Amino acid sequence: MGSSPHYLCRHTPGDRVSVEQERLLLALDFGGTKLTAGLAASGERYWRAHRVVASPPDSNAQSDREIMMELARDLLASPSGVSFVQTAHAVGVSFGGPVDAARGLVLLSHHVPGWENFPLRDWLQNRFGVPVAVDNDANAGALGEHRFGAGQGYDSLMYITVSTGVGGGWILNGQPWRGADGMAGEIGHTVADPDGPLCLCGKRGCVERLASGPYIAQRACQWLREQPDRGRILRALAGHDLQAVTARLVAQAVAQGDDLAWEALEIAAWGLGVGIGNAANLVNPQCFVLGGGVTKAGERFWGVVRRTARRMALPEVHFDVVPAALGDDAPLWGAISLAEDLINTC
Amino acid sequence: MGSSPHYLCRHTPGDRVSVEQERLLLALDFGGTKLTAGLAASGERYWRAHRVVASPPDSNAQSDREIMMELARDLLASPSGVSFVQTAHAVGVSFGGPVDAARGLVLLSHHVPGWENFPLRDWLQNRFGVPVAVDNDANAGALGEHRFGAGQGYDSLMYITVSTGVGGGWILNGQPWRGADGMAGEIGHTVADPDGPLCLCGKRGCVERLASGPYIAQRACQWLREQPDRGRILRALAGHDLQAVTARLVAQAVAQGDDLAWEALEIAAWGLGVGIGNAANLVNPQCFVLGGGVTKAGERFWGVVRRTARRMALPEVHFDVVPAALGDDAPLWGAISLAEDLINTC
Repeated sequence: MGSSPHYLCRHTPGDRVSVEQERLLLALDFGGTKLTAGLAASGERYWRAHRVVASPPDSNAQSDREIMMELARDLLASPSGVSFVQTAHAVGVSFGGPVDAARGLVLLSHHVPGWENFPLRDWLQNRFGVPVAVDNDANAGALGEHRFGAGQGYDSLMYITVSTGVGGGWILNGQPWRGADGMAGEIGHTVADPDGPLCLCGKRGCVERLASGPYIAQRACQWLREQPDRGRILRALAGHDLQAVTARLVAQAVAQGDDLAWEALEIAAWGLGVGIGNAANLVNPQCFVLGGGVTKAGERFWGVVRRTARRMALPEVHFDVVPAALGDDAPLWGAISLAEDLINTC
Repeated sequence: MGSSPHYLCRHTPGDRVSVEQERLLLALDFGGTKLTAGLAASGERYWRAHRVVASPPDSNAQSDREIMMELARDLLASPSGVSFVQTAHAVGVSFGGPVDAARGLVLLSHHVPGWENFPLRDWLQNRFGVPVAVDNDANAGALGEHRFGAGQGYDSLMYITVSTGVGGGWILNGQPWRGADGMAGEIGHTVADPDGPLCLCGKRGCVERLASGPYIAQRACQWLREQPDRGRILRALAGHDLQAVTARLVAQAVAQGDDLAWEALEIAAWGLGVGIGNAANLVNPQCFVLGGGVTKAGERFWGVVRRTARRMALPEVHFDVVPAALGDDAPLWGAISLAEDLINTC
């Protein structure tokens, strides 16, 4: 991870010793639909302060950056009572979209307009006056779970987040593996079933097309329409409004014994299991850490994921499949790790 | 790569200076059906001497080891005229089967009985009196192509060999990535088509089940049986003996315009392309290097492999798909690289 030479190390001997010793780190997560910021001290495992706001419906890159700067100022001003220029020793950033981590460049956002080729690292370095590192949310989530969450103790792991999309990030030899184009970990667009339904990417049966939340809901909804005698529990949960069916409601209906809901969810679990089994055979990491809303769908879902992954992998290939521990904060803790690495290389 | 501390470095000040300076490296390849040994000097890119023998039909681990020791003695005695104890500075080994590279342990061979949990590294170190490193043939092939072949200049690549089986090995950050169990690279048993034909591993539509030589021949053979009016060219090439159909004959028939042969080969190219595309999305290496007999099947085969892989990968994921340059010697050059790394860490 490079950064402007001027900012590689920051020694400020005039600072109060207590502040200097604790080396505060600022983490920013541009999540697409929400903006999160957290403040932690190097070596500590809790938030000194933490803020989340929803990204406004008509937001663009500039307005999101301004809101984030407000959050950061607020975080840095409140607990210690000193201004942020004096307190943050490094800033780590998780971005919900493709990023050139080496250059600290946001390539684009699929949710918010105006991010195309924006030099977020340099922009933040100019504002904070300290080193900044930027990565995408899947890589940051992998790093966060590895250092602070369910991936602790594993030297190699894949972090997979299953919510509105399916993304993933690698830790290999204890370090992020980003790939030649920063695109490694795209398990969502590996093919589980070439005869499956058409994905937005143009292929059929991608893991994301089978396992993401909106497609689980869409599948259940379609079956409710086609099979009027089935899915009573799910219908009731949705107030008999098919438009109101979500993956979360599908999971609730499964917990209450709805067969149609289970069939819709089972396809997701199967697709995810195929993707994990293929990834296990290809890369042979010690562990898969699964986060995101869909992975909260209950033990029956996890059973199919684990059994399918196990059946797809060769007998000699061993791995754990465990739930993420940090929830939505995994990328934010990853951003803390990115910041920590910046000050530790000084 | 560990080795007994005693052998980590070998300084023999009494040796003749000319021999000491050129630092000869011995490479051994236990290939399952054949045994190969090569001698090269560190930093050079050609064989000082090279021997291949077929493994006898009734061979076992012990007899293969004895034959290999004969080859090695022969190699080391001939050109320089000094005994091998004085000349080989390190030994690298490629083994055609699962290996625990860190411990230098052969886990088993699928071809030759008696290899179960054999400590090949220690056994060779005792005999040669110099440091030895052992890896499986796919990882060794990847390393060989990376350092000496088609993978030069790429920092990350996957080497895939397509012959009687389909295996693979990774180079990431310029180093072998072996995985937690030494099983990384098993692209042959990733699933390309879950509704495809049953594989020996128990799954359906594995890349190996679609793309390996014996299965190409089996598929063509079955269709010749079922479709008596088709495949005239292939029938003629096989002397009208269906048992004589091989993948090589299928490729020859394709080159001469046989449609049935092409359909049998196209499935192999498609399956391989799906596996490569999935691997590209998951790991995002710069390059895929393809070797093994099946990859000599001609430009039409390569076209389908490349187009399918490209279609399966996301647009942001870039990679080359290139033919291996070292042929059957890729693992042997990889063994030279393993040996070179041993003397360079001294």
